[in-house]
Amino acid sequence: MKEKTKLEILKVDKDEAIIKHDDIIIEKPYTIFINEIEIRTLLCTPKSIKYLAVGFLFTEGFLNLKTDIKKINIDENEGIVSVELIKFNHNLSGRRTMTSGCRKGTLFYNVIDSLKSNKNHNEILLNRNNIIETMIAFNEQSMLFKETGGVHSCALGYKKKIIRFEEDIGRHNAMDKIIGWSILNDINFKDKYILTSGRVSSEIIIKVAKCSIPVIISRSAPTSLSIQIAEKLNIMIIGFVRGRKMNIYTKYDNLII
Amino acid sequence: MKEKTKLEILKVDKDEAIIKHDDIIIEKPYTIFINEIEIRTLLCTPKSIKYLAVGFLFTEGFLNLKTDIKKINIDENEGIVSVELIKFNHNLSGRRTMTSGCRKGTLFYNVIDSLKSNKNHNEILLNRNNIIETMIAFNEQSMLFKETGGVHSCALGYKKKIIRFEEDIGRHNAMDKIIGWSILNDINFKDKYILTSGRVSSEIIIKVAKCSIPVIISRSAPTSLSIQIAEKLNIMIIGFVRGRKMNIYTKYDNLII
Repeated sequence: MKEKTKLEILKVDKDEAIIKHDDIIIEKPYTIFINEIEIRTLLCTPKSIKYLAVGFLFTEGFLNLKTDIKKINIDENEGIVSVELIKFNHNLSGRRTMTSGCRKGTLFYNVIDSLKSNKNHNEILLNRNNIIETMIAFNEQSMLFKETGGVHSCALGYKKKIIRFEEDIGRHNAMDKIIGWSILNDINFKDKYILTSGRVSSEIIIKVAKCSIPVIISRSAPTSLSIQIAEKLNIMIIGFVRGRKMNIYTKYDNLII
Repeated sequence: MKEKTKLEILKVDKDEAIIKHDDIIIEKPYTIFINEIEIRTLLCTPKSIKYLAVGFLFTEGFLNLKTDIKKINIDENEGIVSVELIKFNHNLSGRRTMTSGCRKGTLFYNVIDSLKSNKNHNEILLNRNNIIETMIAFNEQSMLFKETGGVHSCALGYKKKIIRFEEDIGRHNAMDKIIGWSILNDINFKDKYILTSGRVSSEIIIKVAKCSIPVIISRSAPTSLSIQIAEKLNIMIIGFVRGRKMNIYTKYDNLII
């Protein structure tokens, strides 16, 4: 599937208004089914859909192991991803991230508590120059963003290299694509880091936690809640990496300056 | 509630690494209940929560009329928004935007079809200079974004004025806050327009459609699907408003150059 299309638009500048063809980023709905049960419709950039589905199912708790996957079939015309799993808990299919039935108001914090088993035990020391170099490569690779202005990027980094790069109109989707690719390629996250163009919100750091990825590096800012979760789960957050500048929000000692 | 907090971080630049207090945008979960039934937990910037709840419930179809609201109570400590509605359809409470049971793959397009009754019949002619002026004011007002770098802005515009301005870590939340404020203040959308700092994706244009707002203006880009929906529902999309430049994606004739 292509990721962008040319559409006719009216471009206005100074005293001119010209009808021109311009690049528009494609957004397409894909509905994910597990063993013929509808799970969710994702609105996304139609690329790496298999990885998106696997990453989404993993971070949402529907899938635990690569070996539980029997088959994945993608119907591009209908926008259907059919996943066959060996084990599948039906009761999960209607659920949202927040469970009801708990004490009012503590719902979300219960979700965080339930992540304690995902506490990161992998310490990786990051070299500042490596981060700067990788971020330059990451920014250069974000070509789709540059051309159409509507896309987030995510990558998996190892030492000073980008191992995998993905893009999507959604921050969450881009990350799920990276996670799905990693799972299908038996990547061990323990000495890797995640790069993202977007904000580090609680939902993003929870995805990182579920994979036991020790570090997330962003071009943008983290929220208070994501810092709080990162502290509890021993995840390093680096933000606002721009040129030689960067902010370290958690685990300062893991940066070699 | 305050919207940002000071946290200790390690700031690295050139050959310096200094521990400093820096502004961090607050992200907080609020769980919305209707008549004591849990509906959804929203992760958001803790400001204008009443408007967020009303806008969310309206655009998600839980609420149709302001007069259906009996009472709204916000418990800041527990992060609970309790809404009492006169009429409430229980069956809606577990639903997502996508309905199951339809023909596979056409699910999302059914959602769009169901919006046909929301087709916009209000034509407003927009003066290019007014858009430029309003966008400058909109950008200046985005102070929270400038200081902490993690926030989206949304506003309601009328002629060359901003009537209401809201911010949130999420694009969708910022728009729901504007919509909720407008509903509670009996604003008629028919001659207004929406300004947003973020991308115009299908979910955003669906919110605009549900309120019969005739125009959306963005600092960023629309997706292919949002343009497709806007064409069907007769909504004008203006994007990439930067300085005197702008792109008109739908309904070119409604712009006075």
